[in-house]
Amino acid sequence: MIPSEGWGVLHLFYEVDRDAAERDPNAGKRVVDAVASLEADGHQALAFVVLGHKADLGFMALGPDLARLQRFQQELRTAPLRPTYSYVSLTELSEYTSTEDDERARLRTEEGVEGDELEAKLVVWRDRMAHYQEHRIHPQLPRKACIGFYPMSKRRVAPDNWYELAFADRKRLMGGHARVGRTYAGRIVQLITGSTGLDDWEWGVTLLADDPVALKDIVMEMRFDEVSARFGEFGPFYTGLVLDPADAVARVGL
Amino acid sequence: MIPSEGWGVLHLFYEVDRDAAERDPNAGKRVVDAVASLEADGHQALAFVVLGHKADLGFMALGPDLARLQRFQQELRTAPLRPTYSYVSLTELSEYTSTEDDERARLRTEEGVEGDELEAKLVVWRDRMAHYQEHRIHPQLPRKACIGFYPMSKRRVAPDNWYELAFADRKRLMGGHARVGRTYAGRIVQLITGSTGLDDWEWGVTLLADDPVALKDIVMEMRFDEVSARFGEFGPFYTGLVLDPADAVARVGL
Amino acid sequence: MIPSEGWGVLHLFYEVDRDAAERDPNAGKRVVDAVASLEADGHQALAFVVLGHKADLGFMALGPDLARLQRFQQELRTAPLRPTYSYVSLTELSEYTSTEDDERARLRTEEGVEGDELEAKLVVWRDRMAHYQEHRIHPQLPRKACIGFYPMSKRRVAPDNWYELAFADRKRLMGGHARVGRTYAGRIVQLITGSTGLDDWEWGVTLLADDPVALKDIVMEMRFDEVSARFGEFGPFYTGLVLDPADAVARVGL
Amino acid sequence: MIPSEGWGVLHLFYEVDRDAAERDPNAGKRVVDAVASLEADGHQALAFVVLGHKADLGFMALGPDLARLQRFQQELRTAPLRPTYSYVSLTELSEYTSTEDDERARLRTEEGVEGDELEAKLVVWRDRMAHYQEHRIHPQLPRKACIGFYPMSKRRVAPDNWYELAFADRKRLMGGHARVGRTYAGRIVQLITGSTGLDDWEWGVTLLADDPVALKDIVMEMRFDEVSARFGEFGPFYTGLVLDPADAVARVGL
Amino acid sequence: MIPSEGWGVLHLFYEVDRDAAERDPNAGKRVVDAVASLEADGHQALAFVVLGHKADLGFMALGPDLARLQRFQQELRTAPLRPTYSYVSLTELSEYTSTEDDERARLRTEEGVEGDELEAKLVVWRDRMAHYQEHRIHPQLPRKACIGFYPMSKRRVAPDNWYELAFADRKRLMGGHARVGRTYAGRIVQLITGSTGLDDWEWGVTLLADDPVALKDIVMEMRFDEVSARFGEFGPFYTGLVLDPADAVARVGL
Repeated sequence: MIPSEGWGVLHLFYEVDRDAAERDPNAGKRVVDAVASLEADGHQALAFVVLGHKADLGFMALGPDLARLQRFQQELRTAPLRPTYSYVSLTELSEYTSTEDDERARLRTEEGVEGDELEAKLVVWRDRMAHYQEHRIHPQLPRKACIGFYPMSKRRVAPDNWYELAFADRKRLMGGHARVGRTYAGRIVQLITGSTGLDDWEWGVTLLADDPVALKDIVMEMRFDEVSARFGEFGPFYTGLVLDPADAVARVGL
Repeated sequence: MIPSEGWGVLHLFYEVDRDAAERDPNAGKRVVDAVASLEADGHQALAFVVLGHKADLGFMALGPDLARLQRFQQELRTAPLRPTYSYVSLTELSEYTSTEDDERARLRTEEGVEGDELEAKLVVWRDRMAHYQEHRIHPQLPRKACIGFYPMSKRRVAPDNWYELAFADRKRLMGGHARVGRTYAGRIVQLITGSTGLDDWEWGVTLLADDPVALKDIVMEMRFDEVSARFGEFGPFYTGLVLDPADAVARVGL
Repeated sequence: MIPSEGWGVLHLFYEVDRDAAERDPNAGKRVVDAVASLEADGHQALAFVVLGHKADLGFMALGPDLARLQRFQQELRTAPLRPTYSYVSLTELSEYTSTEDDERARLRTEEGVEGDELEAKLVVWRDRMAHYQEHRIHPQLPRKACIGFYPMSKRRVAPDNWYELAFADRKRLMGGHARVGRTYAGRIVQLITGSTGLDDWEWGVTLLADDPVALKDIVMEMRFDEVSARFGEFGPFYTGLVLDPADAVARVGL
Repeated sequence: MIPSEGWGVLHLFYEVDRDAAERDPNAGKRVVDAVASLEADGHQALAFVVLGHKADLGFMALGPDLARLQRFQQELRTAPLRPTYSYVSLTELSEYTSTEDDERARLRTEEGVEGDELEAKLVVWRDRMAHYQEHRIHPQLPRKACIGFYPMSKRRVAPDNWYELAFADRKRLMGGHARVGRTYAGRIVQLITGSTGLDDWEWGVTLLADDPVALKDIVMEMRFDEVSARFGEFGPFYTGLVLDPADAVARVGL
Repeated sequence: MIPSEGWGVLHLFYEVDRDAAERDPNAGKRVVDAVASLEADGHQALAFVVLGHKADLGFMALGPDLARLQRFQQELRTAPLRPTYSYVSLTELSEYTSTEDDERARLRTEEGVEGDELEAKLVVWRDRMAHYQEHRIHPQLPRKACIGFYPMSKRRVAPDNWYELAFADRKRLMGGHARVGRTYAGRIVQLITGSTGLDDWEWGVTLLADDPVALKDIVMEMRFDEVSARFGEFGPFYTGLVLDPADAVARVGL
């Protein structure tokens, strides 16, 4: 089951079934093997322990084949783990990304370049953009110490109804949002995946950082951005510590 | 229990009770037999595995006899499956479908036809419409790789109260919605069933597609349509991979 | 515990505890006996199987003595049944029923009668009204094939706050609602019971019909009525197939 | 743990764990003993069976020592009872009670008394008020056949934001509310306890009556009062039949 | 996992698994040891029994290392305790704290001081502020008899959208809030920790007091403050009695 564009993404959260775990001393190894096997099949998975009682253990799994991701999910179901939450999405491009025309206009008006210089700058821009788009649609997850995950939607209630705004207004608002995001470059890797029609919110947001303070700061700062202040609706927030799968299962007693 | 119009529809979602499943090696076969028996009795059923933890396994069952559907539901209850969600509805015609008068007016004003040519076009239209209506009230489910399901209602809160709009306004709004739907012809089969007074939302929406991106695209595009933007309220979204019943139960460890 | 006016009403919903049921082959008979014993004590009970996973089995029990109804509930608790939902209410008169003055005025202005003719018509009206009121406060449940149940409240949020309307406005609005209801005479038996202060919504609505389409049609049609469109808030909807108690328990594997 | 003013109040709701109860034939006696022991320590407790499936059994326990109330709660946790709901509050005076100045003004303007007569009336008023306040802060629960309990808050959403009203407006609104309450004197004993900062709503309301119709009537009548119509937000409603503890446990199979 | 600023904070709530506890006579000791070990590693923990059925037992644990806090959480997971709720946050400074410029202006306009006197007062102020900030970011929890905990967010819905206010307005509003808080100095110790992006609300509020009436009074009084009245959204409230860990586990039957 290969989507025509983008990869499938599963965020999977579990609590350990302690009684079953005691009777199943190989459970941890089976979980680690399931992750390794998924990765051997050309997919990726992050393992993390979760702070607080929403879950003990979490996985973010992604890759080209939804059927393979379902098989991973099913393999974890045979471990002494009780599902507590999950999220289903697909990687996707943003419809508000700058176009070449936007960039050409910006170069002319903001940087005052024309002619060959303009074209040369556009070649560089195209390359950077292709790289950015490729990362968004086929991301390579970096290994950071912390993970944050939350789903979100845009508000559809008067007087702040995102879906009644004109495209140009939405693009302008999202541009401000992206500017805040860029100030966290280096501190935060952010991956936004699409779930409209697939799960209960419209997007899933995954934040990876070495410092948990960065997870808090970026969400708080963006909350003052008009697009979040007026239009953001947020689901549950999960915070985890990313570990090697073998360490993660050991830390939760598998 | 045969409704005076339309067929009964049950969307049934389950998680596997792993301990019970281990003690019941014939459970998968019993589930497959239950589906086969339902179909032998003139009803239909789709089996699918569900992505994420809302369910492991799902069925969409429909047909003329509510008592037969309840028997199917009860047969599944004897398998090592724990119900996680369900939805009850009836197939129904839309009250906003174009009438013959609408079509005659449209032919005159938009296509400029009159007299015999007009009548000939109406004969074709009547036939196409009868076929469309028959499909809606007695659908034959095609086999696609993916299924999406969600229930929805129309908003009843000021200032966007669907039930205070005049019929003509509602018909116009639904017409725009239908136009978006038609652009997905071939990519998406959509079945809207009525559940007002029967279950917690007013309609159930089933989407069948070979490409999961289509499930995401159609729901997102419709969200910008005025009728969804101002009046759509959505329940939980389920996404599954449709399989032969025997494959589906095997994929979830039955 | 006999209320000073009206009967107690319990809507009770259960799922079967399959493991316990297997160890308890007489459970079905005990449930049937509990119903028979309740009815022998001058109360009524309907048994039904529920479509979808909100419940497997349901009962609507009513009669003069709340303590006897609690005993019935307790007897069912000894069966292998897990409660999934319930609703507590009392039968009651509507405060918006036409008064004799309303009817006299109506006869004069709409039918143009006066004097003896007017008085004769009022005698008939009084009799019909007494019968209607008696049915509402001491209902005899007819046996229909389907049952629908949902609780509801009137909205108390600006700008549509039912409890800030004048009595005359509420009476007029409820009159329109009743007119829709009367067009379903013969297709639907409706019983509205009061639960303000007793359970989480203000009323319980029980619909009995031989055709499930009628359950859907009446609720949808009323939704366009101003009193529902602006002021109706609805809880969960349950749909069941009414059966003899022995058939009902057999259908759910007891 | 003695609060500086008022008594602690616990509303505790349970369902019977039937399997555990069968293995524990002395459970009922232990529950009865726990109640007797609490009362021997200078606290009070009402036992009641609950209508519907929100709970089988409930207790309202109150008295000076929160640590003693926690011990009572813990003793019930050793019975085969599964907690289903609870509410934590403290008895408190109303901040909107008439002051002596209010009463003096009222006597002058409404009753036209002055001088010694006024002072004599104020002596009587002070005595009645002290008695009322003492009952509110150190209530002696009467034994009535029925109990109703629900938590509530005042709305804090524009345009009906209680916490933005001036004190005088709130006092006037609460006065109207109290007038409705007084018309139920004799039919209903009402105890309002404070839970702001202690549990999820701002107040707990306990209604005791011999006639369940009175529970329904008072809540419905108050709902039309401006203070409820515009500012009341209500939590779940519980309805029970008050019994001797030994009868209550027997009625639920302990 | 050491945050770049502030300490990690876990609020952990549990109910006792009675059956497992009976088979595990050393469970209480293990819990007490887990607390002692956490404190030996330079972290703090408060243990408390909870009033009502939201939990039996609770812990507030805080300190520099999130990985160490996760290990504490995991050690409690091996006790016969079922998690019922939790909250994840970080200690943080308030962004609305007075700056030195604010204080200098205040000293000039309100106290009329200048020159050396002004500078001397600022030295004292800087010292007091540093102490306050240090307490907020690295708090030493005092031992009080009662604990209250609730999470909260600022409203983001028109017309009361905190995140659309200018910084100066937010600072003024928070100043009024702080003034109410200061009137409870001595009666209440309050610790506000940040959870935006980490858990479902924006802040966690922990109140410690010897008198439970103080928990109720401060929350009620603040509710009339404009910042709460218009912008406060509150999650669940937990109330507990703080005890030595050994006493706490004994009080809940471990």
